[in-house]
Amino acid sequence: MRIKAISLDIDGTITYRDRRISIDAIRAIRLAEGLGVPVMLVTGNSVPFAEASAIFIGTSGPVIAEDGGALSLKGEGTMRKRVFLADMDEEWILWSELKKRYPEAELSFSMMERKAGLVIRRTVSVKVVREIIGELGLNLVAVDSGFAIHVKKPWINKGTGIERACEFLGIKPSEVAHVGDGENDLEAFRVVGYRVAIAQAPEGLKQKANYVTKKTYGDGGAEAVIHILRKFGYLGEEYENPLGDT
Amino acid sequence: MRIKAISLDIDGTITYRDRRISIDAIRAIRLAEGLGVPVMLVTGNSVPFAEASAIFIGTSGPVIAEDGGALSLKGEGTMRKRVFLADMDEEWILWSELKKRYPEAELSFSMMERKAGLVIRRTVSVKVVREIIGELGLNLVAVDSGFAIHVKKPWINKGTGIERACEFLGIKPSEVAHVGDGENDLEAFRVVGYRVAIAQAPEGLKQKANYVTKKTYGDGGAEAVIHILRKFGYLGEEYENPLGDT
Repeated sequence: MRIKAISLDIDGTITYRDRRISIDAIRAIRLAEGLGVPVMLVTGNSVPFAEASAIFIGTSGPVIAEDGGALSLKGEGTMRKRVFLADMDEEWILWSELKKRYPEAELSFSMMERKAGLVIRRTVSVKVVREIIGELGLNLVAVDSGFAIHVKKPWINKGTGIERACEFLGIKPSEVAHVGDGENDLEAFRVVGYRVAIAQAPEGLKQKANYVTKKTYGDGGAEAVIHILRKFGYLGEEYENPLGDT
Repeated sequence: MRIKAISLDIDGTITYRDRRISIDAIRAIRLAEGLGVPVMLVTGNSVPFAEASAIFIGTSGPVIAEDGGALSLKGEGTMRKRVFLADMDEEWILWSELKKRYPEAELSFSMMERKAGLVIRRTVSVKVVREIIGELGLNLVAVDSGFAIHVKKPWINKGTGIERACEFLGIKPSEVAHVGDGENDLEAFRVVGYRVAIAQAPEGLKQKANYVTKKTYGDGGAEAVIHILRKFGYLGEEYENPLGDT
C-alpha cells in the first residue's frame, strides 16, 4: 500500500481544547506539503472557515467542509472553487416545523455561510429534532456534536467527502491516511487506507485505528503527520526531530 | 499615552506573500494576549474567514471584517456575536446595471458570506465600476485591492471599524496601536494612537508611521507586535528574544 495524501480533521486534531491551532501541527503539515504529500482538511465547519484554515496553514489538497457536504479546491493564484454536494430542501421543512413547536429553537450564526446542511443551537435537544424528522418522514439525520446539532442527508459524511476529494486529486481513497479524534471520523476511517486516532478520541475510534498517538489534541496531530510520513517512507528514520529542522 | 490593545491587518502583515501565516506572528500575538493586551484582527476578508483567524491564533479582541463593515465579538464558550455596520442596497443596484452592460462581470465567490459590501472579480475594471456609480448617483466607493474590486459605503473603512470595536472593548481608539501594510491602513492610522507600517508597505503609509519594521510580511508583523509590547512597557528590554521563550 502506498499513501499519497493525508486527510486531517481540524477541531481537536490540529487544535487544542480551546480551538487554538498547534504550531507543531502547522509545521508538520508544511513539512508534508514540502515532501510532496498533499494535505486535505476535513471539518464540520463552513467552507469559508475551512478555506481560511487551508490558506493560513498552506495545504494544497481539497478542503472538505460541512461534514462532507462541501468541497473547496485550490485554483489559480488566490482563486478557489467551491463544490456543494447537497442542497437544503427537507432541512428547511424540518426547521419550519421545529421553530413552530419550539419557539426557543435557534439556528447557528454560521448558517449565513452554510449551504449543505442545517446547524441548530442546543437550546433544543437532538431528541426532539429526531422526533420531528421521524414524524414528517424526512430523509435526514441529526447528530449532536457537543457544540451544536447538525442535520444533513444520510449519505453526506466525511467518508463520502474524502471519496469526492480524491476524484479531484486523481488518487484512490485507499491511498489516503486519515487522522481524527471524533465519532464522525469513523466514516472517514471506512474509506481510507490508513487510520490514525488522536489520544483523546473515543474508544470506538481508537479500536479501528492503525495507530493511536501518544500526545493529545493538536500536538497529537503533529505526531500523527510525522508518523505517517515516516511509516510510508517520505521521511527517513534519521530525522529524530524533523520539526526541529524546519 | 498608554496603549491598551493592538489592531493587526491580516494579509501581508501576519502572512507571507503566498498568504500562509507566519509562525512567529502567531507566537508574538499569543505573547501579547498572555501579557493582557487584546489583539484585534482587521481585514477586507469575510466574517467567517476572519473568525477562523481569530480562533486559530487565539485573539480575544473584536474581529473587524469586510473592510470595517462587520465585527465579530467573542462570546461565551465557542459562541460569537456578529455585528454588521452596513447593509447592501445601492450595491445591488450597481451590480444589476454593471452585469447588464458587462456580461463578463462576476461576483467574488466570497459574496455567499458577505453582508456589508460587494466584491467583484477583476474581469471588469474599477474604472467602469466607478463610471456606473457616478452615472447612477450612488453613494458608494470602489477600490481595487489588487485581488478584487471592493464596493462599499464611503463611511465604511478600517478606521470606523476600529472605533466601533473600541466601544465593545471599553477603550479609546487613541489607546490602540495599529499595524498594517496597505493603502487602506491609512484610515486605521487616522484614528489610533500608535502606527506601525510593515517594511513592504507603500511610501505613503510608511511616512505616517511611528515605526517601520525591518522585516517584511508576516515576520514584520511579529517584529511589530514585539516592538509595541516593548515600547509601552509590557515587555522588559531584558527579553532579547521573547519568542525564543514561548
